[in-house]
Amino acid sequence: MTVREAAEKLEKLEQKLNAYNHAMGVMYYDSATAAPAGSAAGRGETLGVLSGTYYELFAAPDVGVLLETILSNRDEIDTLTAKKAEIMKRDYDETSKIPQEEYVAFTKLCSDAENVWHRAKKENDFAAFAPYIDQIVETLIRFAGYYSPGQDPYDVWLSQNERGLTQKTLDAFFESLRGKIVPLLQRIQAEGIEIDDSFLHQEYPIEKQKAFSDYLMQVMQIDRNYCAIGETEHPFTTNFNKYDVRITTHYYTEHPEFSMYSVIHEGGHALYELHTGDELIGSCLATGTSMGVHESQSRLFENMVGRSEAFISYIFPKMQEIFGPQLQNVTAHQMYLALNKCEPSLIRTEADELTYALHIMVRYEIEKKLFKGEAKAKDLPGLWAEMMRAYLGIEVPDDTSGVLQDSHWSNAQMGYFPSYAIGSAYAAQFVAHLKRDIDMEKAISSGNLKPVEDWLCEKIWRFGRGMDPEEILLNACGEPFNPTYYTDYLEEKFSAIYGLK
Amino acid sequence: MTVREAAEKLEKLEQKLNAYNHAMGVMYYDSATAAPAGSAAGRGETLGVLSGTYYELFAAPDVGVLLETILSNRDEIDTLTAKKAEIMKRDYDETSKIPQEEYVAFTKLCSDAENVWHRAKKENDFAAFAPYIDQIVETLIRFAGYYSPGQDPYDVWLSQNERGLTQKTLDAFFESLRGKIVPLLQRIQAEGIEIDDSFLHQEYPIEKQKAFSDYLMQVMQIDRNYCAIGETEHPFTTNFNKYDVRITTHYYTEHPEFSMYSVIHEGGHALYELHTGDELIGSCLATGTSMGVHESQSRLFENMVGRSEAFISYIFPKMQEIFGPQLQNVTAHQMYLALNKCEPSLIRTEADELTYALHIMVRYEIEKKLFKGEAKAKDLPGLWAEMMRAYLGIEVPDDTSGVLQDSHWSNAQMGYFPSYAIGSAYAAQFVAHLKRDIDMEKAISSGNLKPVEDWLCEKIWRFGRGMDPEEILLNACGEPFNPTYYTDYLEEKFSAIYGLK
Repeated sequence: MTVREAAEKLEKLEQKLNAYNHAMGVMYYDSATAAPAGSAAGRGETLGVLSGTYYELFAAPDVGVLLETILSNRDEIDTLTAKKAEIMKRDYDETSKIPQEEYVAFTKLCSDAENVWHRAKKENDFAAFAPYIDQIVETLIRFAGYYSPGQDPYDVWLSQNERGLTQKTLDAFFESLRGKIVPLLQRIQAEGIEIDDSFLHQEYPIEKQKAFSDYLMQVMQIDRNYCAIGETEHPFTTNFNKYDVRITTHYYTEHPEFSMYSVIHEGGHALYELHTGDELIGSCLATGTSMGVHESQSRLFENMVGRSEAFISYIFPKMQEIFGPQLQNVTAHQMYLALNKCEPSLIRTEADELTYALHIMVRYEIEKKLFKGEAKAKDLPGLWAEMMRAYLGIEVPDDTSGVLQDSHWSNAQMGYFPSYAIGSAYAAQFVAHLKRDIDMEKAISSGNLKPVEDWLCEKIWRFGRGMDPEEILLNACGEPFNPTYYTDYLEEKFSAIYGLK
Repeated sequence: MTVREAAEKLEKLEQKLNAYNHAMGVMYYDSATAAPAGSAAGRGETLGVLSGTYYELFAAPDVGVLLETILSNRDEIDTLTAKKAEIMKRDYDETSKIPQEEYVAFTKLCSDAENVWHRAKKENDFAAFAPYIDQIVETLIRFAGYYSPGQDPYDVWLSQNERGLTQKTLDAFFESLRGKIVPLLQRIQAEGIEIDDSFLHQEYPIEKQKAFSDYLMQVMQIDRNYCAIGETEHPFTTNFNKYDVRITTHYYTEHPEFSMYSVIHEGGHALYELHTGDELIGSCLATGTSMGVHESQSRLFENMVGRSEAFISYIFPKMQEIFGPQLQNVTAHQMYLALNKCEPSLIRTEADELTYALHIMVRYEIEKKLFKGEAKAKDLPGLWAEMMRAYLGIEVPDDTSGVLQDSHWSNAQMGYFPSYAIGSAYAAQFVAHLKRDIDMEKAISSGNLKPVEDWLCEKIWRFGRGMDPEEILLNACGEPFNPTYYTDYLEEKFSAIYGLK
């Protein structure tokens, strides 16, 4: 096989793999947005057939041969093709290392675990779900051994979610973060300052909230021709290619801020996917590079744009126009304060910007213990309660609003939570550098985010998976990851809001 | 290969084929309900890959061998497996008779034609679409030759949509129908009776219409656990298996009757799909047997149940409760008359029960001419205007509301329209026999449709594709198709409504 033939085969293979991913992605989206409740079993069978075919196509030995052919003749081929082959080889090595029976059994385990978790969460029945956690951890430790024998298994999974991320980096990051956030939070509580957000908790009709979503998408310059909004229990973003991105939100009549920040957050993810380079279309490079970098974009828009005073001042007249009476006697500054109110709370997805990272730390510490064998699933409710007390100073009334709240563990997404916190820290670092090139405040207050988006596209979005997170940081900031930007940002912002010196 | 081995292989094949159909079906549904407008190209590529794989799996020579193995040893195998093999062999023979390049080219032609049709309809530009009609007719004539050399090509396509249906049957059917409807319509118009339906054309808020849809689904005893309602431009029903059926509707603020009858009509299709026999699950038999029989169920519910005075009287108090002020001074009888008002109109999908069949006849006569070579696409606007004048007595102002109004021809669905009219006639015949066993009026006026649905399930639904339309009629009615029931029904109903003697 010549390198040219291999490149052609690679392209055909990618087209097929894309088709299966696309179809499975649409089925997943449909299941969350439109499918009737009783349709899961039939969909499970279909997804089983499609994922099995995907595995057979991708993990086939001749795929290894064609990738090797390209990679051992890099000098004879364009750099883009070589890059595609390199990234696909990474995926290939990992996928083909898991024996097919174990892969299928694992898919089944996750599917069962997710079903049980839904019921367990609803019925506050952790005992029903616990055995799945132990089985999932056991499987993940075994798989980590296939991927990277000899390496610490939890580091393997951290790096699966965020290439290059280790417990060493995270321990230092979370320690510095905790060192800033906890005292800041204690000072806020000690000062006894109460921000009034009662005007947010009136009735905001859903039709008006939908019009507001459309407006926010427009301010974010998201092309609706390629990005639709759906409604789901938990908001998410998914993409089938750069011309078909979906975000979802959830409307609560008495919490307009929930959908508002879901749209802005998911909109940040969408912008990233909508702007991967045209030259990557159809290839394995045509998507965001990692969970952490993805989350950096969603959090950048959610918090550093969407919760800034400049942004809220700009959109406030439109909010008044859309919602009318509820905002008659409210000022933009009052709205800014209300949307940035800090308060330790039980649920991660409802946490404010300041306390959010503490929720992540609870999960990180527990995952470390599970992987080290220092804890089993049965210990988790106790550990959870203990850490929520230590980190956030609150008591956990039940497992539903405690250890059962997130779906991640039921999907075997371990080593995944830290990328949420890492994403916020990346975002602060990106913004610090962006501000050296662009007057971000001015862009936001004039309602023209284009210069900001152009900068992000130039430095981050267009590369897709063509650069690893570490390379993206170097490319955008000229320096490696540095969490100080984030801790400084939090301290400055919340000291000002709460009038602390 | 033993017959036992062949049966096992058949089951595995069906599972795979189901998976591809399911995935393609969900992608189609998603494209109509949720996908952003600019996403068509990427979806087209994916559907190309999936349908190509489907073709390869299904039209493979060894599939022919395994089906032959079963069919030539029918006595060694259970009757259900033999029936599955028989029906699948029919599909197989047809699919494998079309050379793959021609199949792919035809799929492409239809996809292009549909895109052009959308634009042409919007811009009233028939000339842009006309060449596609000629190409499609030419291809269909060629394919008919592959399917059944020597047979009249239009008969081949009629039978593709409704097994056993011929122009001979249809000519007689439409002639008798026209002989009843046209004079009836002329008498109605001559009498000059005006039914007041102005109260229907006030503002009916969409949220309330949605609640009304939920109520209608409940009255129809449709299990929402397996049947969801979506919103699309044109209502339709689709099903992936008997535990996942989707109907769609369209809400118009000032036309609540549009969504009302869309839900009841599509609900009739859904009931059929939800009640195919459990023993058919996963096989090629697990769906409605034909377009005509399907349409008989949707029209039975739409017209013979949903537009009956018994039904409207039963639901009217709930309508008043849901919609409130708009129906304050309206009686159930006035509502019954308004929902049965006859008036010749331009658009098939908005036609009343009486004039509907005339719209079908226009299309049938034109399709016959196209297949006989007596007309080319360029002649269609003229023919359309002429027939609308002759059949409905109205003038066609433009092609958008004339020959371009339906999507069917852009999808090469020729020979398909007649099944709409045939369906109504089947429905009348089924109802006539149903009434010999069941007090249908009483069932409807007490709001308990169960006896009616049980009868239909027993006689029709549970067999899926295990019986052809002709067998279904014999099974349910003990006699072959007889259109007199339908013409009698129309005459009786509309003579009463309009007080004709």
